[in-house]
Amino acid sequence: MKIALLGLGTVGRGVVEVINENKESIEKRAGQAIDIKYILDIREFADDPINKLITKNFDEIANDDEIAIVVEAMGGIEPAYTYAKSSLLKGKSYITSNKELVALHGAELLEIARNNHVNFLFEASVGGGIPIIRPLNQSLTADEIYEITGILNGTTNFILTKMREDGRAFEDVLKEAQELGYAEKNPEADVEGYDACRKIAILSSLALGEHVNFQDIPTEGITQITKEDMIYAEEMGYVIKLLATCQKQDASIFARVSPMLISKVHPLAMVNDVFNGILVKGNVIGDVMFYGRGAGKLPTASAVVADIVDAAKHTGTNIISFWNRDKVELKDKKQVKTRYFVRLQKDMDSIQNSVKEIFGTVEEVKSLNNEYAFITELDTEVQFAEKMNRLPELKVMNKIRIEK
Amino acid sequence: MKIALLGLGTVGRGVVEVINENKESIEKRAGQAIDIKYILDIREFADDPINKLITKNFDEIANDDEIAIVVEAMGGIEPAYTYAKSSLLKGKSYITSNKELVALHGAELLEIARNNHVNFLFEASVGGGIPIIRPLNQSLTADEIYEITGILNGTTNFILTKMREDGRAFEDVLKEAQELGYAEKNPEADVEGYDACRKIAILSSLALGEHVNFQDIPTEGITQITKEDMIYAEEMGYVIKLLATCQKQDASIFARVSPMLISKVHPLAMVNDVFNGILVKGNVIGDVMFYGRGAGKLPTASAVVADIVDAAKHTGTNIISFWNRDKVELKDKKQVKTRYFVRLQKDMDSIQNSVKEIFGTVEEVKSLNNEYAFITELDTEVQFAEKMNRLPELKVMNKIRIEK
Repeated sequence: MKIALLGLGTVGRGVVEVINENKESIEKRAGQAIDIKYILDIREFADDPINKLITKNFDEIANDDEIAIVVEAMGGIEPAYTYAKSSLLKGKSYITSNKELVALHGAELLEIARNNHVNFLFEASVGGGIPIIRPLNQSLTADEIYEITGILNGTTNFILTKMREDGRAFEDVLKEAQELGYAEKNPEADVEGYDACRKIAILSSLALGEHVNFQDIPTEGITQITKEDMIYAEEMGYVIKLLATCQKQDASIFARVSPMLISKVHPLAMVNDVFNGILVKGNVIGDVMFYGRGAGKLPTASAVVADIVDAAKHTGTNIISFWNRDKVELKDKKQVKTRYFVRLQKDMDSIQNSVKEIFGTVEEVKSLNNEYAFITELDTEVQFAEKMNRLPELKVMNKIRIEK
Repeated sequence: MKIALLGLGTVGRGVVEVINENKESIEKRAGQAIDIKYILDIREFADDPINKLITKNFDEIANDDEIAIVVEAMGGIEPAYTYAKSSLLKGKSYITSNKELVALHGAELLEIARNNHVNFLFEASVGGGIPIIRPLNQSLTADEIYEITGILNGTTNFILTKMREDGRAFEDVLKEAQELGYAEKNPEADVEGYDACRKIAILSSLALGEHVNFQDIPTEGITQITKEDMIYAEEMGYVIKLLATCQKQDASIFARVSPMLISKVHPLAMVNDVFNGILVKGNVIGDVMFYGRGAGKLPTASAVVADIVDAAKHTGTNIISFWNRDKVELKDKKQVKTRYFVRLQKDMDSIQNSVKEIFGTVEEVKSLNNEYAFITELDTEVQFAEKMNRLPELKVMNKIRIEK
């Protein structure tokens, strides 16, 4: 089985390393030899024996009938999308770790793969090495999945963990994460939740069988979370996590990415540092959780290579099919019901009465100096916003959603 | 696709229920209708519409060419083993939740399935609904797995959780578990670790690709764990779990089932009540954990039905193949290295000196009244036993293995 690798960055290097390191057991499981015939990269690797595999011309790969599997580890929409379509149309399976591509064009590429009796596989696009795409497709098939909630971004989870453990500020830990290589120079995709948003769109589409558009998912990042929020969370027996979720609520589907306060006994509360955790709830199976390293060269390569093995074992047979192009209509975010934890600056004595008058019953929280903090009842987002507007001229220190 | 169900006990009922409840999505995923044509049971279900499917004669099923899949939910070696062989030889896939059967005859039945181009599937035999068999076979294929450690028995995990949370004695909680239906009248298979032993034998065989004989795995249960042990564990920041493990240690393989003290920050420490957790370590992927309900009618049925879907999608194609009949030689249990937590009755003043003299450096633990407690260095089991023998006439209150 000859394969071509597109992109020799971190993940691409990992794929080469894993195929070499575990060659024997991989080929035993695939039932055949796995050889990398081409590596597409614009760079030269003069001193590296790998250089003899380098090509700068994708057409050389596309037109080589010996290539049965194309593995993409470049990221970004283009040229990955063009390469994916071209490969699938030429009867080659396409394997990718590229969450942008899968979130945007997954349904279409799966359809093309199906029509051409090959496979479009993307285990590495969500949760790094954690098996989650294949379990959703092949293991949880007896269930109606009614919720998927995950910590899907390792960078923000690392930041939140350090903020909590060391009592440090967001900016401070972000800097450390950048130095450690966990966060990019431009950290927006991680800290604003965009990365988690694409991943939950992929998981929801697979679970629902229809396309969830990532642009439809309300997304908030963790840049507003402070040291003081962590102190409150600790006091209440909660932790703050950036959760990406998709749930059936009142017969409709809603999805969201946002920081959430979750109880310390919640299964996702123990998912710390750069680890990811994905909680899946089904009407038969109950709660199942998957946990592991959500990123990194080797864990991601592990998932890519597992896809290669699967594609090799399924030559001529399409294996992922439960995600079509029909669009899922998500519930209006304003109508979603949530409870909020709210911190107000206490610059007037009657604040307690005002809050009671506007919010009705609230759960008061032991407050930091010169603050008044409480947890609201379950309410729609629009009602919550209206109530917040009715508060007298008060400084809102922060408001964070809290699990029901 | 016509199927036959062997046994209408708890799991069998669950299978019927799940197929009816989620019929539409299951058939969409299987790509065809799934109909139960026979149910083999010795009983009559006169008032139940299901009675018309009942047969008492297995041959009727075996000789019906329309039956493509036989689903067994009876348990026990016979007649399950005979039915399995007969079904596979007649070109029918065989799906089972029967861990005794899989642990004892798995390698042979997989071979027969392979030779007959059908499938022998057993996702429900370990971890109830938790996807673990399929991930080991199809997702973690890029890795050399060097450790699997799991909480594989929900009954004992429930008992240990209640003992810890409520400060109650083993016998007391066992009685409650029996009343709740979590433990059998004869609880031996659970509390002595036999159930966990069969399950870790299955997982290890799948990971190693060769047969691990469950009779070779040293197995201890939880009957010796006391309220006082729980107090010590809490004080040390540990919890006590019944762990089933298989690991590569010093270039050899060892397996064991025994109660272990694990740190509260260990991923398996948060697996409480009847939940199961399975930690898998690979040389590429790092640590991955799978968590969910390890038993119960519906979670187990969820796994069985997922196997039915998979078998339906893979008619004519064998999908599990990486477990052959070669036997894994396990490391002599006496040579396995462990650290122990030891509690001695303190009926002499010089006890501290004796322990130091015999064990060398130990980590002293804040002791209960009239006890002396400590943690040993890493040592082989045989050396530990010798040292314990050299202690002067002292009452050993308990000794529990502790994670390295």
